[in-house]
Amino acid sequence: MDFAARIRSSFAKQGLMTTLGAALGEISSGRVDVELRPRPEISQQHGFVHAGAISAIADTAAGYAALSVMPADVGVLTTEFKINLVAPAIGERIIARGRVVKAGRTLTLTQSDVFAVNTGQEKLVAVLMATMMTIEGREGISD
Amino acid sequence: MDFAARIRSSFAKQGLMTTLGAALGEISSGRVDVELRPRPEISQQHGFVHAGAISAIADTAAGYAALSVMPADVGVLTTEFKINLVAPAIGERIIARGRVVKAGRTLTLTQSDVFAVNTGQEKLVAVLMATMMTIEGREGISD
Amino acid sequence: MDFAARIRSSFAKQGLMTTLGAALGEISSGRVDVELRPRPEISQQHGFVHAGAISAIADTAAGYAALSVMPADVGVLTTEFKINLVAPAIGERIIARGRVVKAGRTLTLTQSDVFAVNTGQEKLVAVLMATMMTIEGREGISD
Amino acid sequence: MDFAARIRSSFAKQGLMTTLGAALGEISSGRVDVELRPRPEISQQHGFVHAGAISAIADTAAGYAALSVMPADVGVLTTEFKINLVAPAIGERIIARGRVVKAGRTLTLTQSDVFAVNTGQEKLVAVLMATMMTIEGREGISD
Repeated sequence: MDFAARIRSSFAKQGLMTTLGAALGEISSGRVDVELRPRPEISQQHGFVHAGAISAIADTAAGYAALSVMPADVGVLTTEFKINLVAPAIGERIIARGRVVKAGRTLTLTQSDVFAVNTGQEKLVAVLMATMMTIEGREGISD
Repeated sequence: MDFAARIRSSFAKQGLMTTLGAALGEISSGRVDVELRPRPEISQQHGFVHAGAISAIADTAAGYAALSVMPADVGVLTTEFKINLVAPAIGERIIARGRVVKAGRTLTLTQSDVFAVNTGQEKLVAVLMATMMTIEGREGISD
Repeated sequence: MDFAARIRSSFAKQGLMTTLGAALGEISSGRVDVELRPRPEISQQHGFVHAGAISAIADTAAGYAALSVMPADVGVLTTEFKINLVAPAIGERIIARGRVVKAGRTLTLTQSDVFAVNTGQEKLVAVLMATMMTIEGREGISD
Repeated sequence: MDFAARIRSSFAKQGLMTTLGAALGEISSGRVDVELRPRPEISQQHGFVHAGAISAIADTAAGYAALSVMPADVGVLTTEFKINLVAPAIGERIIARGRVVKAGRTLTLTQSDVFAVNTGQEKLVAVLMATMMTIEGREGISD
């Protein structure tokens, strides 16, 4: 199974992505996009998309970017991330563009830039840097 | 309106908290708890609670901890947070305990410790450090 | 005074930069480089450049990148940064390339990519994301 | 060799600690303090202790806190840290109190709280959260 098929299959198992209404976008080696549409069900108290929902898609995009460059028999787990929220997440669509910054044997550094899209214009709303850990031979952790 | 009532009212406006099935726990000055119950709708691909859902309740607990020590006419926005995930989030309940580390005029540093609860035992699963920004007189940003 | 002169003047006041043997590199609007040469006086216990010295030049490069796009009468202070160390800092030179990711009125997000240079080749050793705060009219805080 | 002797021996090899004028304080299992005295040689441009020097002692205290709970044949490397700077670092002494939050086989989460001490009063100036990685059998990486 190639990495794109593997990522699609894994994404489908993420209950939270379905709950948030998130969808996979473009997938290439080292790069994965995840999108969602703002709606009241994923808002915080001011009506913006909740930082937790932004983090969820940014973390997922980053994790799959890492997985796309891994051997087929390992999984990844997020060990930590930091997110800077630079503008309110409002717009027609929110898109998290994940990519690998530096792949390593045990730890892989990834970044997701998150944009709000309005009438075709992208505006940066958040930046997430995450460390992904390679998990091998641990029961229950694969894709 | 006292801060507990204010926080309950604001929490009720957070669509994402309802969607995740999260609930407010104890509230005191500088401390707010938010809880949720693991279920498939908030999982990642291995069946653990998704880091995004953990982040969402930890960020919310931290934000309301900050709001609890603010004057009644200001709101707070998360400007950044980092989360370290130290154990898989599995259990009967997940509880994020938010607290103020250092309150400032413009920026307030907050921390949430997140625990998985099983048969009455709490196990640390994540630590979040967040910077909250005080927002005054900006339309649409209150509680 | 233009921003480059202002940055040079401010850098000269940073005792730590002199102590570390760090020097300003290229300066342009929104971008500032700071370099140092590995030597035993700035090492950690394994002989690599200490993460604290890496952080110091990366934070300084990021702070001056922010200052380069600010009005002449304000200063900046680092409110937080995160650094991911992805390879041991060894080589002929270490160079931190700071840049503005998103400038704001109160908070500016900056990034520094840190490289080890060996025989003309650059290798990424660290990435720092920092939030700089604009300081106006506070005694003792200017450049 | 017990862990305190091991930490003292390793600390002595850190050229940067000597350069900054830093010294080990109390050492116990899972907890290590590192101190320094503010002076112009470690300042930033406003005369406060530079965030890089604060980070250096906080990271060192955290790393040795991790090392204090490790087997004698492994070393630790910092993979990432985040530091929140909550007050200017000025005073008679700056003390970083490092401790283990959660020890793991590969990764250990540590925290350092940094205080400025004036006339016997401690004031929080920074909080650092760091991930330490256990290094086994890698040449050049021991204590």
